[in-house]
Amino acid sequence: MRWDPLEVNWPAFRGRYANLGSVVSIGGGPANTTSLLRVMNERAVFAEIFRLGKVSRPELAQATGLSKPTISVALADLERARLVRPVGLRTGNAGRAALLYEIRPEAGWVLAVDVGRAYVRLALADLVGEIAARAEEPSRAESLDGLLDQLSRMVAGLTAGAGLAPGDVTVAVFGTPGIHDKETGALRLAPNLPGWERPGAVERLAVVTESPYVLENDVDLAAVGEGAYGLGEGVSHFVFVSIGTGIGMGVVIDGKLYRGSQGAAGEISYLPVGEGDPLVDLGRGMFESVASAGGVVAIAERLGLSTGTAKDVFEAARAGNEAALKAVAAEADHVAHALAGVIAVLDPELVVLGGGIGAQAGDLLIRPVSERLESLVALRPPRIEVSTLGPDAVLLGALAVGLATARDLVFERAVAGPAR
Amino acid sequence: MRWDPLEVNWPAFRGRYANLGSVVSIGGGPANTTSLLRVMNERAVFAEIFRLGKVSRPELAQATGLSKPTISVALADLERARLVRPVGLRTGNAGRAALLYEIRPEAGWVLAVDVGRAYVRLALADLVGEIAARAEEPSRAESLDGLLDQLSRMVAGLTAGAGLAPGDVTVAVFGTPGIHDKETGALRLAPNLPGWERPGAVERLAVVTESPYVLENDVDLAAVGEGAYGLGEGVSHFVFVSIGTGIGMGVVIDGKLYRGSQGAAGEISYLPVGEGDPLVDLGRGMFESVASAGGVVAIAERLGLSTGTAKDVFEAARAGNEAALKAVAAEADHVAHALAGVIAVLDPELVVLGGGIGAQAGDLLIRPVSERLESLVALRPPRIEVSTLGPDAVLLGALAVGLATARDLVFERAVAGPAR
Repeated sequence: MRWDPLEVNWPAFRGRYANLGSVVSIGGGPANTTSLLRVMNERAVFAEIFRLGKVSRPELAQATGLSKPTISVALADLERARLVRPVGLRTGNAGRAALLYEIRPEAGWVLAVDVGRAYVRLALADLVGEIAARAEEPSRAESLDGLLDQLSRMVAGLTAGAGLAPGDVTVAVFGTPGIHDKETGALRLAPNLPGWERPGAVERLAVVTESPYVLENDVDLAAVGEGAYGLGEGVSHFVFVSIGTGIGMGVVIDGKLYRGSQGAAGEISYLPVGEGDPLVDLGRGMFESVASAGGVVAIAERLGLSTGTAKDVFEAARAGNEAALKAVAAEADHVAHALAGVIAVLDPELVVLGGGIGAQAGDLLIRPVSERLESLVALRPPRIEVSTLGPDAVLLGALAVGLATARDLVFERAVAGPAR
Repeated sequence: MRWDPLEVNWPAFRGRYANLGSVVSIGGGPANTTSLLRVMNERAVFAEIFRLGKVSRPELAQATGLSKPTISVALADLERARLVRPVGLRTGNAGRAALLYEIRPEAGWVLAVDVGRAYVRLALADLVGEIAARAEEPSRAESLDGLLDQLSRMVAGLTAGAGLAPGDVTVAVFGTPGIHDKETGALRLAPNLPGWERPGAVERLAVVTESPYVLENDVDLAAVGEGAYGLGEGVSHFVFVSIGTGIGMGVVIDGKLYRGSQGAAGEISYLPVGEGDPLVDLGRGMFESVASAGGVVAIAERLGLSTGTAKDVFEAARAGNEAALKAVAAEADHVAHALAGVIAVLDPELVVLGGGIGAQAGDLLIRPVSERLESLVALRPPRIEVSTLGPDAVLLGALAVGLATARDLVFERAVAGPAR
């Protein structure tokens, strides 16, 4: 799973990382070929240790194509920069036991944050992705100020609990609904996060963390999570469809997250599905109006079921209630039509269902949706499966993005940066 | 504009090109580093001459990063292989006049073929894309045998007319409706080409040409043509939507044709649009049933207009006929709903309208479609424009694919191949 380099925001320490990304400028002065080559070799060795885990010099030489003396120089530099460490000997095979190296886990820290309407979830992981601490609270999403206060407090508590200073976090990744409009600094299409539609709202995340941070659409992050740790692993073209209080889709093409020209690829809440339905609220997106949790409840109520939540509807359907079964059938029909549109355009290999409804009712929906699709699509329908990551999909996607970003950042700071 | 390497079929001369693609095996024996490097340098120089046109040694040295002596060796080899030629001196600037080199146009030939239901179009171009001859006839698509006979006769006539032997064509590119099923050798989803749905039908194109050939979906080729020569030039994410006797879409993502997991990306004839309409023939795809030329005529007839063709309907609308205007409004509504689905999934920067209806009635459709889209999409709708390539879009796409393929083929044969 790859993704495009994300735009990293530098709230407090812009000066500290000023040379980041300008690899040619090593040590602050003009590049010289020898040191440039040395940094390139170290970068390659560092990347291979990440990929391979515990690894010996000969294995690194084979993986990179570099000579063993070059590997030794690179390892010494990386060890001096406290990015890798020797970790023991591999014995067992014939010949000399080989000294093994691994990434120093505490060489970097990633903060992953899932900012949802219902819950805020945080995870703090070291540079090899081991989660050191987690936190979860009902979200104070009613106001931007309240949510920022809550996030600040939770981040401070989590880092302090792990024995870290606030600035020790290498990068923070926030997943939120909506689309980050970089021109205005506002969040668009995120009606569930009131206040974030105001210009400059996103920049206010700088109060939450002293680290560089990345903002990404939550469903896009969930798709990255599926690709890194879930059903999308190794699948070139797949979509992650999240159905819950809102509806969205993350698109992975050639193993890479596809965002579209305005960042709005996968905004399938706006698919023209269910247009004739009196529930449709055009301001919200037709498909979302009829098929989100609110849509399911409203349809069930029209069918005579007095119910509180979508979960109640699915439980009543499992108990055999006829009105609830009709509401589930309507939901399946809406989802099938939406997926028919997705399939006609993208022809994905796999559709992963997630979100609250995907998780609670995926088992009820997959068969009728697949059957309906048979008559709606050109060739055979793709596999449709329920995410195995559950409510952690967004958090795991944020972690994957954060780890990839942190690996670059710690290398640049320690090896290629001006501090050397 | 880039595209993935296409699968090239080798009908008659498999032995002749047996080493193609295996660059490591130079001269038939095991690779040695010096000759491998030399071939790599020549490949780089050859590619830069294609990109830059008439070019001097110093310019090539700058563009490739190779030394001037290396450039000289590569140019001598490429000239000996009859792939490039000296073409004169550049004077005017201070200093010595520079000898210029260019691609030898007749070092390769590309045959582009657009196999449509209504017309068959052919173009023969040299290696720099100059079209030497064209031919066009009403298509004998009623039977596979008749169409193959027609294509064979037209190809023979075109190559002979240009003074070429049949085997002189470096590569032929055929654009057809439908999807090439590589397992069975049949063409799927091409109801307008009867007989091609039979297993092995595609392989029979080997009787038409003695050259290696490539088969590609015609609308996908048109999208490539738009990217290479039309409105899509320089646009990262765009779609080419063809509306005519059939309906299809070519998807370009990151400047590259996207085909989907089964080759069915962009099969938007199957978008669930117009489901409530009695015209819908589910076997064909809902959107195509109501919005293709046949759909337009049927809707116009239901509205009381007695008419022959879709073109008549659009002409009557231009003349102010009320039933025809209603039929155009219905078409615009169907197209807007289909594009709303495309935009929700892909968020393209540009939609190019092509095909018979796109060309004849694009001007009538763009305004009502854009207006309807305002209330159907999440952010601002993308630009919608009518293709400027007209009926040549498929042919030009085939030419672009053929040129890219031919450049590789002539290099492999002349420089890296076993004949050396």
